[in-house]
Amino acid sequence: MSYHCKIILQYEGTRYDGWQKQGNTSNTIQGKLEQVLERMAGEPVEVRGSGRTDAGVHAAGQVADFWLPELWREKGAGFVKDYLNRYLPEDMAVLEASEAPERFHSRLQAARKLYLYRIETGSRRDVFSRRLQYGLGRPLDTEAMAMAAELLTGTHDFKSFCGNKRMKKSTVRTVYRISVRQEPDSSLVTLEFEGNGFLQNMVRIMAGTLMETGLGTRDWRSMPDILAAGDRQAAGFMAPAEGLCLEWVLYDEP
Amino acid sequence: MSYHCKIILQYEGTRYDGWQKQGNTSNTIQGKLEQVLERMAGEPVEVRGSGRTDAGVHAAGQVADFWLPELWREKGAGFVKDYLNRYLPEDMAVLEASEAPERFHSRLQAARKLYLYRIETGSRRDVFSRRLQYGLGRPLDTEAMAMAAELLTGTHDFKSFCGNKRMKKSTVRTVYRISVRQEPDSSLVTLEFEGNGFLQNMVRIMAGTLMETGLGTRDWRSMPDILAAGDRQAAGFMAPAEGLCLEWVLYDEP
Repeated sequence: MSYHCKIILQYEGTRYDGWQKQGNTSNTIQGKLEQVLERMAGEPVEVRGSGRTDAGVHAAGQVADFWLPELWREKGAGFVKDYLNRYLPEDMAVLEASEAPERFHSRLQAARKLYLYRIETGSRRDVFSRRLQYGLGRPLDTEAMAMAAELLTGTHDFKSFCGNKRMKKSTVRTVYRISVRQEPDSSLVTLEFEGNGFLQNMVRIMAGTLMETGLGTRDWRSMPDILAAGDRQAAGFMAPAEGLCLEWVLYDEP
Repeated sequence: MSYHCKIILQYEGTRYDGWQKQGNTSNTIQGKLEQVLERMAGEPVEVRGSGRTDAGVHAAGQVADFWLPELWREKGAGFVKDYLNRYLPEDMAVLEASEAPERFHSRLQAARKLYLYRIETGSRRDVFSRRLQYGLGRPLDTEAMAMAAELLTGTHDFKSFCGNKRMKKSTVRTVYRISVRQEPDSSLVTLEFEGNGFLQNMVRIMAGTLMETGLGTRDWRSMPDILAAGDRQAAGFMAPAEGLCLEWVLYDEP
């Protein structure tokens, strides 16, 4: 028997090498969590997340789960949350912690995710939120981008938008919504991507392709051709990590 | 003859030693501005601000002015803005630049200022805005704070709230408004201080005194006594710089 915990987690990804632990480097979100949990539990703890955010990508509501020795059930999730928040670095924070059903799996059971991509089209990023924005520095035709976004929405084979060339599993995903929003009286453009799951780098490649549409170097009508090509070369550039933030992950009721 | 410029400026004060240039250290907001302007103009340029923000204090709308050699009139304020934004560090940005009337003086003519003080009362500051918040980590009675704030509002001798013991000029100021706001569904408390001017450290000492009221260690009814004492010892602690931000400075129409 052991105690199964689920946490909702925030992080500013700027100075991390992404979610996933890599060999000896512990400068990852997963690595930092496991370090603090091992110290707390007195034994190694493996943390699994809803997905692997890339180096530099942020999260406002990442979900992860892990097992602790049975005796932690008594201290409870509140203790775990407080312990993590006391010892995690300032650019990571646990928003919620709760006991998870035994069969809960952060990644396999994730049913829906929302990512935001923030683009500063003006000459200068806002000083206070610059770490969460990509500084494009050129104006975007958001109407063309919205039309391209409409064509990418739905259930498609997103192989052209997959950064993993050796992907062997299905590359079919459903994107429920892509919205393109110019903030009022602002040069900030925000893209929202809501879907049942995203391939490696998929949101960043979609964001890059939409930006090319907005810059006029790519026709918004070409989206179906890009999808049909099934070839990464057909899509646009991969937008920089700093503009991307995982907003939330939803799970079906069991 | 020379060209008089006014700028509106943002900065995250975290890594600076405040506004004012000090001897050889150039790690100040004024120092950084003068460095870039000297490089641009080919001669030393003296920048004056609406007021001296302390080390670690932020600004969303600081105002400053300076003179450039006459030949810069032709390039104009847009050029000056772009040059500054190209060479200033990422945590400083010029929002606007314009020609200023010859007699304009950022400090002497400032008629009204707004400062915000942000307090995180929960156990953990928000990861994305932590640099702009003071992490108090304890709940505040905002109703008591609002009553104390009401008693501090108005025209008073604020000597008890002045950090400069050798202040020889008048310590009378008018505070038009102090609001205490608990953000909805949030543990963030925001204080707003609007006045015709503030003494050295005055906003931080008022924020600290209000926090003590909110923590219950000081009676809100004691505000008139503190004012009447005319003694720094009568007021509360000086709240940390990181929570403070100069929002804007207004000038009377000439």
